[in-house]
Amino acid sequence: MSHRAGIVGFRGYSGDELVAILSRHSSVEPVLLEHRADSQDRPRPLGHRSPPRIPCTPDAVAAEKLDVVFLATPPEVSMDLTPWLLNAGAKVIDLSGAFRLRTVENYKLWYKEEHTQPALLEEAVYGLPEFYRHLVPGARLISNPGCYPTAANLALRPLVAAGVVDRSSGIVCDAKSGVSGAGRKPSLKTSYCEVTENFSAYSILDHRHVPEVLMNSELSEPEFSFTAHLLPLHRGILETIYLRTVNVTAAQDIIDIYQRFYKDSPFVRIYPAGQVPDLHAVQHTNFCDIGIKWNPITSQTVIVSTIDNLVKGAAGQAVQNMNLLLGFPESEALL
Amino acid sequence: MSHRAGIVGFRGYSGDELVAILSRHSSVEPVLLEHRADSQDRPRPLGHRSPPRIPCTPDAVAAEKLDVVFLATPPEVSMDLTPWLLNAGAKVIDLSGAFRLRTVENYKLWYKEEHTQPALLEEAVYGLPEFYRHLVPGARLISNPGCYPTAANLALRPLVAAGVVDRSSGIVCDAKSGVSGAGRKPSLKTSYCEVTENFSAYSILDHRHVPEVLMNSELSEPEFSFTAHLLPLHRGILETIYLRTVNVTAAQDIIDIYQRFYKDSPFVRIYPAGQVPDLHAVQHTNFCDIGIKWNPITSQTVIVSTIDNLVKGAAGQAVQNMNLLLGFPESEALL
Amino acid sequence: MSHRAGIVGFRGYSGDELVAILSRHSSVEPVLLEHRADSQDRPRPLGHRSPPRIPCTPDAVAAEKLDVVFLATPPEVSMDLTPWLLNAGAKVIDLSGAFRLRTVENYKLWYKEEHTQPALLEEAVYGLPEFYRHLVPGARLISNPGCYPTAANLALRPLVAAGVVDRSSGIVCDAKSGVSGAGRKPSLKTSYCEVTENFSAYSILDHRHVPEVLMNSELSEPEFSFTAHLLPLHRGILETIYLRTVNVTAAQDIIDIYQRFYKDSPFVRIYPAGQVPDLHAVQHTNFCDIGIKWNPITSQTVIVSTIDNLVKGAAGQAVQNMNLLLGFPESEALL
Amino acid sequence: MSHRAGIVGFRGYSGDELVAILSRHSSVEPVLLEHRADSQDRPRPLGHRSPPRIPCTPDAVAAEKLDVVFLATPPEVSMDLTPWLLNAGAKVIDLSGAFRLRTVENYKLWYKEEHTQPALLEEAVYGLPEFYRHLVPGARLISNPGCYPTAANLALRPLVAAGVVDRSSGIVCDAKSGVSGAGRKPSLKTSYCEVTENFSAYSILDHRHVPEVLMNSELSEPEFSFTAHLLPLHRGILETIYLRTVNVTAAQDIIDIYQRFYKDSPFVRIYPAGQVPDLHAVQHTNFCDIGIKWNPITSQTVIVSTIDNLVKGAAGQAVQNMNLLLGFPESEALL
Repeated sequence: MSHRAGIVGFRGYSGDELVAILSRHSSVEPVLLEHRADSQDRPRPLGHRSPPRIPCTPDAVAAEKLDVVFLATPPEVSMDLTPWLLNAGAKVIDLSGAFRLRTVENYKLWYKEEHTQPALLEEAVYGLPEFYRHLVPGARLISNPGCYPTAANLALRPLVAAGVVDRSSGIVCDAKSGVSGAGRKPSLKTSYCEVTENFSAYSILDHRHVPEVLMNSELSEPEFSFTAHLLPLHRGILETIYLRTVNVTAAQDIIDIYQRFYKDSPFVRIYPAGQVPDLHAVQHTNFCDIGIKWNPITSQTVIVSTIDNLVKGAAGQAVQNMNLLLGFPESEALL
Repeated sequence: MSHRAGIVGFRGYSGDELVAILSRHSSVEPVLLEHRADSQDRPRPLGHRSPPRIPCTPDAVAAEKLDVVFLATPPEVSMDLTPWLLNAGAKVIDLSGAFRLRTVENYKLWYKEEHTQPALLEEAVYGLPEFYRHLVPGARLISNPGCYPTAANLALRPLVAAGVVDRSSGIVCDAKSGVSGAGRKPSLKTSYCEVTENFSAYSILDHRHVPEVLMNSELSEPEFSFTAHLLPLHRGILETIYLRTVNVTAAQDIIDIYQRFYKDSPFVRIYPAGQVPDLHAVQHTNFCDIGIKWNPITSQTVIVSTIDNLVKGAAGQAVQNMNLLLGFPESEALL
Repeated sequence: MSHRAGIVGFRGYSGDELVAILSRHSSVEPVLLEHRADSQDRPRPLGHRSPPRIPCTPDAVAAEKLDVVFLATPPEVSMDLTPWLLNAGAKVIDLSGAFRLRTVENYKLWYKEEHTQPALLEEAVYGLPEFYRHLVPGARLISNPGCYPTAANLALRPLVAAGVVDRSSGIVCDAKSGVSGAGRKPSLKTSYCEVTENFSAYSILDHRHVPEVLMNSELSEPEFSFTAHLLPLHRGILETIYLRTVNVTAAQDIIDIYQRFYKDSPFVRIYPAGQVPDLHAVQHTNFCDIGIKWNPITSQTVIVSTIDNLVKGAAGQAVQNMNLLLGFPESEALL
Repeated sequence: MSHRAGIVGFRGYSGDELVAILSRHSSVEPVLLEHRADSQDRPRPLGHRSPPRIPCTPDAVAAEKLDVVFLATPPEVSMDLTPWLLNAGAKVIDLSGAFRLRTVENYKLWYKEEHTQPALLEEAVYGLPEFYRHLVPGARLISNPGCYPTAANLALRPLVAAGVVDRSSGIVCDAKSGVSGAGRKPSLKTSYCEVTENFSAYSILDHRHVPEVLMNSELSEPEFSFTAHLLPLHRGILETIYLRTVNVTAAQDIIDIYQRFYKDSPFVRIYPAGQVPDLHAVQHTNFCDIGIKWNPITSQTVIVSTIDNLVKGAAGQAVQNMNLLLGFPESEALL
């Protein structure tokens, strides 16, 4: 084990997934950073071995010589911790929304609070490796993408870039997520009896993940309609994207665009024309699976894009970024 | 009990719901028509009283003096039974797709088989009371609407008729249904382990319910994109509909259009602007609940329309039609 | 509407069920007593009519002339409210555990706190109508039984009273409940992601409902082993009870004992020998369904007893008690 | 890859799990044996690589030089295939019940059909490694244990063998399983709408897994009461076992017995006294987790034993047996 990676927020769902993935890593050892002494832990068998646990303080982080620290924390906590972690010599991979947008104005507009680290906002690299793989190795601070934008951008950007999307008629992204996307903190909205046998829309047209899609797929707000929904299941995101194509004469044209775009990306899988993935295909994996259906008469196109929100939508993608950052194979511990 | 209503297909989910609703009706007694002796019944307590059960034959139906017969059967069975049931003097309310389209050509196109009763196809009244309430009382044969089209048409037609939909930019209907919509017959697709913790799209752009929406909301196929999805839950449909408005200056304009359209319809409920229903709001009820979100800058509009697929989407609407047909209050046994 | 019934705790699951049941009652109108102004209410359609809402104060209760008040509150709140509600002239039906045990010592032992109303503890009538129907009409304070004890006592007492249980070899009650039994307050234990695809045992051998079973079925603690489990579903309790019989020569003997015992009880249903109920048989009903399997060689006996924890295990039984208290038919609003 | 393992029944849930586990094995390559050309496969991304697929015939098996063949098939198919597979030089690990009991009489009694391979029944080694680890390496035919008996025997036998169980007062095993235990073949009982929000008991006192527990834990039928239940979830078994102890003076005594018994068994984990596992603790693992609660006054004891029915209860245990058979570390591909 040549490297050590700290995890703040290890009790949450993303943090828990980070611990599980890193425990399979051949060259990196996880270290738990105790930021807030909160809930009791779940029962464990005798002899159970957990990763080492240290306080989340500059001294402890420096003494432990952590190469990288993952922040699975709310944005305001990430803004507080990042400066001193960088000073202590650790690279930071932040899973919150704190550093995903490009301007403090935009942050305030969508997150409803002031950004306290404008210089770091500017410095941060948006860690969607399939688009920005070359920028990650040299970064100090990686902003890990949101779950919804990961599935949306991986589906949209190749087609937008290829010029085959009729942007004037609008693009609709109807997104559905499992409950773990809302985090582990108890709330009425995520209580079992409120969720089971239920399904609901939320953040209609104003979800804070919208600007992340716009800026990374080069779309404008009037062109893009997004609604989030809560699925009665633990993990997984499925987005159904509707658009009309231009300059496309066969479904295979679209498949070809994707295959070219992702020929060096091990975690994006494309389905044969007319076939689409479901959530079972991607749960507990770091894959983003994409399938399309195209109507040759009307050019109506439906794209289905699926990920596991805790893996490719959070912890898995964060480890993918760590691998690039530290020079390991991109898929180490992820296949 | 002045009237008697036969039910063919009483072992299916819609048939079961019909029995439950009719058992609460003040003036109609259910009679089970045994069409195929199939599966064993579930355990029942001692002293349990079921509705009377008779063979599904012309003699038995005539002898029992049934006023109306509900067909909760596949389309091909409905086409077989309807002629002799009408001859035996019963009105027929068919819950299948056999008589929902207007031409044999259209039927063949979407149902992939020949229609064997073209005269009855022409005669049938499409039993969506909120649109065709006046046509039901005089009919012999009512074609009960499909579950998806019920939620879509009730949401779309008032706006299309009012001329506030920008049809050129297209309308997207992203529809999600619980598993009971697929019927009670065991299949791999509806097996517990395939559905739980899963979510999937199906019949993308080519669901046989599409023409039912087009013809009743006065839309053309290129204007309307529809995809069905399977939710991991028992009952309920939620449709998220995306469109852009014209001639709308406030969300309340849209609310007003709905409220005027449905002022005499007890089963359509409209939500305050910006609020939308979830499935818990409508399960086990005959309501269709509709809410909207409207963006004043872009005119992007999202409509959420929800029903219980077994009630307003099947058995409840069928009883609503029966009430109109036999002269009972429209909401008898349904509130 | 000749009578008015107050409900404290109407936002919880039992309170919500009480409102729903009373809304179907021919002679009683529900009134919501606002005890703590807490959570926002869920979205409602335009025109939605809720029951009247008044403050939960002596003046308001007296002014409204409430005949009866239901307390769907924690035990300590019930102990606070009951004295002044009785003084204000209302009968009280308490759904908490505050008044279910017979001595303050026993209360302290199982509820881990002092009982503040020992005189009322003595006065309260245990409202299990199938056993104590004759005591309810004259009572001021009804203690509504716990959910687990309702299913256990209805299954056990007839056999114990008939002398057919081999008490020396012990009785095991393995109880499983849906999540709504834990109430509506958010907690990690009842969060969706912790419950779905999970199943767990809790309160093993020391659940506070144990003494309620012992005292009403005339058993001693060493004779009775009880473990509660959390099912990944909304509502319903199924208890699997294991015992050995004496003086039984056929399964039908056991069936006969139950049928005699419950011949005047409309809400207990017995299954034919060898058949048992599942949760679907009782959800959304006030029934307790009981079935048995008996081994003629070993006298091993398994009893399956099921209820809906929110109906027969809480709100339904409370209304059953109210009906007896106010002189209405026992099953009014409950069938 | 020095070895090759065939899988018959690779489309079922256990077979699917076998493929997944073997794909992680460092020294064994899975080969799919096509026994019946049945259902279509699920959609797969472009470039997806499946294991090689060959016909399930003596020639093909011999030509492929399979070291071992897993049978994830019904008992009657296993009885048909085993003789010629052994003749073709493959070791056989059978996951069905065909070879678990010791006599043809017992087989007929519990499986309701004749055993066609009595010599093989006698030869087969019961592959519960924690009890019979020494017998596996020399065997030709391994009978992989049933899912329920695995959890029951691992919990019961150490205590029975230590003489601390009061057998005269009886042992109750209340067992609950997820739906995948019933296999992948569609049936009404395992249809989504029948299972969700439901819970039911089945095979009360007469489950065919009972004799497997009796013979491996050295109990007699009158001492042991067993009931199976169907949980609304995909995978996992939790058994709640009730007994009274003799010669035990502290809960730790019981813990000590387990820890001594399993000191060389990597897949049985014991919990601290008073703590018990839930299903989340074992899903997707080959562990059997065991916890106990003990009442010092009454000696009432509750044991909670949990496994993943598809892993330790089927495919994982089968690979554990294969590892022993072929001389690999017992936990290869399983941790």
